[in-house]
Amino acid sequence: MVEQQGHVPMKSLIPYDESNHFPLENIPFGAFQNPTTGKTSTCTRIGDLVIDLGLLEQHGLFDGPLFSTLEKDSHVFSHQHLNKFMELGAPYWHEARVTLQTLFSHDSSKINQELLSQVSFSYNAVQMTLPVFIRDYTDFYSSKNHAYNVGVMFRGPENALQPNYLHLPVGYHGRASSIVLDGKEIIRPRGQTSADQKNPSFSECKRLDFELEIGAFVGKSNPLGQPVKIGEAPYHIFGFCLLNDWSARDIQAWEYVPLGPFNAKNFATTISPWIITSEALEPFKVKLPVQDPTPLKYLQDDNNYSYNVDLEVHLQTPQLQEGTLISKSNFKYMYWSTNQQLVHHTVTGCNLNVGDLLGSGTISGPVKEEYGSMLELSWGGKEPLKLPNGEERTFLQDGDTLTIRGVCKGQGYTIGFGDCSGKILPALDESNFF
Amino acid sequence: MVEQQGHVPMKSLIPYDESNHFPLENIPFGAFQNPTTGKTSTCTRIGDLVIDLGLLEQHGLFDGPLFSTLEKDSHVFSHQHLNKFMELGAPYWHEARVTLQTLFSHDSSKINQELLSQVSFSYNAVQMTLPVFIRDYTDFYSSKNHAYNVGVMFRGPENALQPNYLHLPVGYHGRASSIVLDGKEIIRPRGQTSADQKNPSFSECKRLDFELEIGAFVGKSNPLGQPVKIGEAPYHIFGFCLLNDWSARDIQAWEYVPLGPFNAKNFATTISPWIITSEALEPFKVKLPVQDPTPLKYLQDDNNYSYNVDLEVHLQTPQLQEGTLISKSNFKYMYWSTNQQLVHHTVTGCNLNVGDLLGSGTISGPVKEEYGSMLELSWGGKEPLKLPNGEERTFLQDGDTLTIRGVCKGQGYTIGFGDCSGKILPALDESNFF
Ligand SMILES: [Ca+2]
Ligand SMILES: [Ca+2]
Ligand SMILES: [Mg+2]
Ligand SMILES: [Mg+2]
Ligand code: NI
Repeated sequence: MVEQQGHVPMKSLIPYDESNHFPLENIPFGAFQNPTTGKTSTCTRIGDLVIDLGLLEQHGLFDGPLFSTLEKDSHVFSHQHLNKFMELGAPYWHEARVTLQTLFSHDSSKINQELLSQVSFSYNAVQMTLPVFIRDYTDFYSSKNHAYNVGVMFRGPENALQPNYLHLPVGYHGRASSIVLDGKEIIRPRGQTSADQKNPSFSECKRLDFELEIGAFVGKSNPLGQPVKIGEAPYHIFGFCLLNDWSARDIQAWEYVPLGPFNAKNFATTISPWIITSEALEPFKVKLPVQDPTPLKYLQDDNNYSYNVDLEVHLQTPQLQEGTLISKSNFKYMYWSTNQQLVHHTVTGCNLNVGDLLGSGTISGPVKEEYGSMLELSWGGKEPLKLPNGEERTFLQDGDTLTIRGVCKGQGYTIGFGDCSGKILPALDESNFF
Repeated sequence: MVEQQGHVPMKSLIPYDESNHFPLENIPFGAFQNPTTGKTSTCTRIGDLVIDLGLLEQHGLFDGPLFSTLEKDSHVFSHQHLNKFMELGAPYWHEARVTLQTLFSHDSSKINQELLSQVSFSYNAVQMTLPVFIRDYTDFYSSKNHAYNVGVMFRGPENALQPNYLHLPVGYHGRASSIVLDGKEIIRPRGQTSADQKNPSFSECKRLDFELEIGAFVGKSNPLGQPVKIGEAPYHIFGFCLLNDWSARDIQAWEYVPLGPFNAKNFATTISPWIITSEALEPFKVKLPVQDPTPLKYLQDDNNYSYNVDLEVHLQTPQLQEGTLISKSNFKYMYWSTNQQLVHHTVTGCNLNVGDLLGSGTISGPVKEEYGSMLELSWGGKEPLKLPNGEERTFLQDGDTLTIRGVCKGQGYTIGFGDCSGKILPALDESNFF
C-alpha cells in the first residue's frame, strides 16, 4: 500500500535517466501510427522510444505460459485499439507486463539492436492515436472539495453539498464520440446561454473551462443485470489516464436543470495517450479517509484507496509562450474511490464493457492552489488568476493551451502519464449554424 | 405532408391482408438470426415473412444504379448490424427500398418460389437481434405534456415547466450498453432510495415505471466541431423505432440532483426490432404547432413536423393474461421535433455517428388516457389504475409485461413498428450485492 521499500530501479537496454516518465517500472499501453508500416498499432513506451506491440507479437515474443495458449493467429496487439488485449483479463495483463520488462531489460537475450530499430520509434516522431475503443463514457463527481466549492458558489456554504453527495458517487453518462486525444485542438463552442436564466441568447461560450480528472478504463465486463461486488472491482479496472472534461459553464448553467449537463460537455473530452496500468500504480496506493457517514453496505470497502499521483495544470497563452503552473492537485483527493464508482455504476444492473471509461470528476485539493477548474481557481470569475507576465484569466481564452500532467515519484524512478493538452480555437462564425 | 390521396396499395407476391403491419409500403430494416445458416444477418419483413438481406445481396439482387457502383465484395447487408448499409446515405436507402418493393411485387420477375423459400422465414420462427450497433444513445424530454405533468407533481402548476424548457430540447446522455431488444426480460433493479430525501436505504425499486418513447436512428454523421443546420437534419435521420426507457422513480428521485438520472435509467432500455424508415413515414408527416416563444434561429424550422403514429401501451399481469390497453398516445404530441433535437445535439460541436439513437422523451398526450408513464397515469402513485379484472396498479409489479405498439394508418394499408415489450422479473437477492 505504501511505496516500495528499498526498490532497486530496473535496468533497461534502452537508456533513460531517473527522471524519465517511462522506465521499465511503467510499461504503459497506447496506440500509434507506425511511421514505417503506416498502420495503426498498439504500443508501449520505454524511455523515449515507442515500441510497436503488434510487431513484437508477430515476432512471437509474447511467449509466456498464458499467451502461449492463445491461438497462433489471435493477434491481440495487432489492432488499432487495445480492447482485444484488455479482454484477455488481469492475468494476461500481468504476463504482458512481465514479458515486456524482461524483453527490454539490460540483460535481454531476445532483443538485439537490429530488432530494436525495427520495432521502436522516437516518441517525437510518431503520432499517437486513441488507445481504446470507448463505447460508453461515464463521468463522476467524486472529489468532495470540488463539489463543495461549486456548491458554495451556487448555494452558499450551509447547503454546499447536496443531500445525496456523501451517500453515493454522483455521476452522469457522458458522450463517448467526442473523446479526443492529447493535442487535438478544441473549437470554442457556441450555444444557448442566459444571463437572467429566463431569456436565452445564441452566443459563443464566454466561460470556457477545463476539469482536471483521471479516467479509469474498464478491463473486465459484467453481464447486464449482474452487479459487481466491491471486492471484485479492482479486477475490473485495467488502468488509468489523464482526462480533461472541457466545460462551457455559461451553457451548462442554462441547460442542466433537470437532466444534467449536455451541450456544455459533449463538444470534447481530452485524454492522455497512455494507459498506466493498475499494476504499475500499485506501489502508489494511498488509503482513503474513513467515510462519514458510513456508506451503504454495497459500497463499503475496508481497503478503500486511491493513488498518489501528483497532478499539475499548466496554462500557456499567446503572450506567455512558456506556460505557467496554475494548479497542483493529487489523485488522492478523492472522496469516492474508482472501485466504489464502478460498483455503484452496476448496482441497478448496468453492464460495463471492456474499454468503457469512468471519469473521476474534477479533482480539487483542499486549498486554492489545488483547485481543478477555472471556475474554482477564479471563484466563479470573481477573482481572476494573475499570470507571470501580468495577464489575467477568469476562463480560457482563444489561443490558450491547457495541459494536464501526472506523475508518481517512486524510489529511484518516476512514472508519468504523458500530456493531456488542448489549444482553444476561436468559435465558428454564425454562418455555420443557420 | 398529408397522407397520400388516392394511394393504390402495392401488391406483393407475398400474401398479406390490409391490416398487416408490414406491407410493401413499409419495408422496415432489422437483424435476425437466420435459422438455416445460424448467422446473424440484416433483414426486412413483408407480411409475416422475414427476408434475409444478406442472402439477397449474395444473389446479386441489389442491382440498382447506385448499388451497382459498390465493389463486388462490399457486402453492406451481410453483417449482424445495419450500420454499413446506413453509412451509404439517403440515396442508397431509397434505392434499397425501391429494389425490395420491386423484387417482391406481385409481378416480380426475379423472385421465384424456390428463391423465396430460401431467403424468407416465418416471423414466428425467428429470433430477432439488435438492428444497429448503437455507440451513443441520447434521451430527450420533448413532450411538453409529459414535462408539464412531471413538473406539476414535483413543483406545482405555476412552475411546472423549467425556464429553459420552451427554449431548447432538454436531453441527457443515456447508457448505450444496456439497450436491449423487444422481449428481453427486465430484472427489477435494486439501489439507493430515500423516503426523507436525507437518509438512504438499499432497497429494490418500488416505483418501477416505463416511458413510452420513439427512437430515431442517425444515418449520417457530422464531424466533431461541425454543427448540423436545421435544413440538413432530415438527411441525418435513417428511421425510427419504439423505445421504452424503463425508469426506477424512487432511485431517480434520490440520485438525479444535480447531474441527472443515472442508475434509475441505465439498467435497461428496450427497443422494437424494426427500424421504420423516414421514407416509409413520409405520408404520415404532421406539421407541429407554431412554437411560442419562437426558438433561437438555429432551431427555427418553417417546416417543423412529427409523424402521425398511433401509440398504444398494453399491460399484462400474471392474473390478467389477455393484457389491457392502459394508454393511447401519438408521436404527433411532440413539442420539439426530431430534427430540432438532432440540431441542438450538435450545436456546440458534438459529433453524431451513424447508428446513434435519439430517444424522443416520454410522449404524453393532453388527456389522462394518453399519458406515457405510470408516474403520470397513477399521478405519482396517488390514483391507482384499475385493470379490467379488478387489480390495481400504481407502478409495475413482478411478472407484469409492458408492451408498446405503434401504427400508421394509410389508405388501404397499415404500417406497424412491431412490439416493444418486456416482462418484469423479481429483483436479485441481496447476496448478489455484498
Ligand atoms: Ca467532470
Ligand atoms: Ca426518457
Ligand atoms: Mg467532456
Ligand atoms: Mg433507459
Ligand atoms: Ni426513386
